[in-house]
Amino acid sequence: MRKTYEMLVAGLTLATLTSAVSAQVVGKMEDQIRWRQSAYHTMAWSMSRIKANVDGTFNKEQVIEAANLIQAIANSKMGALYQPGSDKGKGWKETRLKSEFFGSSDLGQIAQTFGGAANEMAKVAATGDAAAVKAQFGKLGEACKGCHEKFRKEE
Amino acid sequence: MRKTYEMLVAGLTLATLTSAVSAQVVGKMEDQIRWRQSAYHTMAWSMSRIKANVDGTFNKEQVIEAANLIQAIANSKMGALYQPGSDKGKGWKETRLKSEFFGSSDLGQIAQTFGGAANEMAKVAATGDAAAVKAQFGKLGEACKGCHEKFRKEE
Repeated sequence: MRKTYEMLVAGLTLATLTSAVSAQVVGKMEDQIRWRQSAYHTMAWSMSRIKANVDGTFNKEQVIEAANLIQAIANSKMGALYQPGSDKGKGWKETRLKSEFFGSSDLGQIAQTFGGAANEMAKVAATGDAAAVKAQFGKLGEACKGCHEKFRKEE
Repeated sequence: MRKTYEMLVAGLTLATLTSAVSAQVVGKMEDQIRWRQSAYHTMAWSMSRIKANVDGTFNKEQVIEAANLIQAIANSKMGALYQPGSDKGKGWKETRLKSEFFGSSDLGQIAQTFGGAANEMAKVAATGDAAAVKAQFGKLGEACKGCHEKFRKEE
């Protein structure tokens, strides 16, 4: 897990999407939308697990497993799954991506905030400090929301 | 990523599912099926990325990102998403889980083989040795297939 969130940002900028990472671009548009929907739902599972531990009996190992998984997704350069035009189309279901995702000047900062919060979540999880996990879980949730509010359509 | 595959096995045994991991069980049955379908599709994306690197231009960082993500899923104790009765039901789509998953005496060995192959894949990816990545990618694919052939219904 040596990736920095700068790399996530790099993965999310359109310049990178359309040039240097061409070897990384795999799958048809519908595959890419399904894969990104899948990755977000895998994070949703992991967030639910951390929440269950924060609200109920705290199990350090479960929190570490979930936090490591969120971190691995955050550092996987999902930007490659946001091909131009993929604000229209269906994976498991219609994409909820707003068109303003493409070309947004806020995207880099939002991605950086999320990547940083995910890396910090994994670090804090490793300490087993339940209060610190709860605090960082709140920050990570805010980072998720920062993107949802700006780039995700209401259902 | 300090989880061993013994822990994955522990997560997959029914005895564990129904006792010690109760704090880990989150979501309704349909959530659980959707989450496991999502995790498998996130692995499918990652496998596609490694394949693209093995078959085309090899980029060490991309392989590491993908292998780390597969490893994090393999060590996340997805067993908690296999509640008894979840061989029937719908997540994103109808589950393909065969009923014989529950109570199978081969499950532990199959899970152990997969967990071991995923951990090894991450190790090999970190070396950046393209030939070794290709060889381990083959072994990991076989480990995936070992489970699919036994426990996944044809579409």
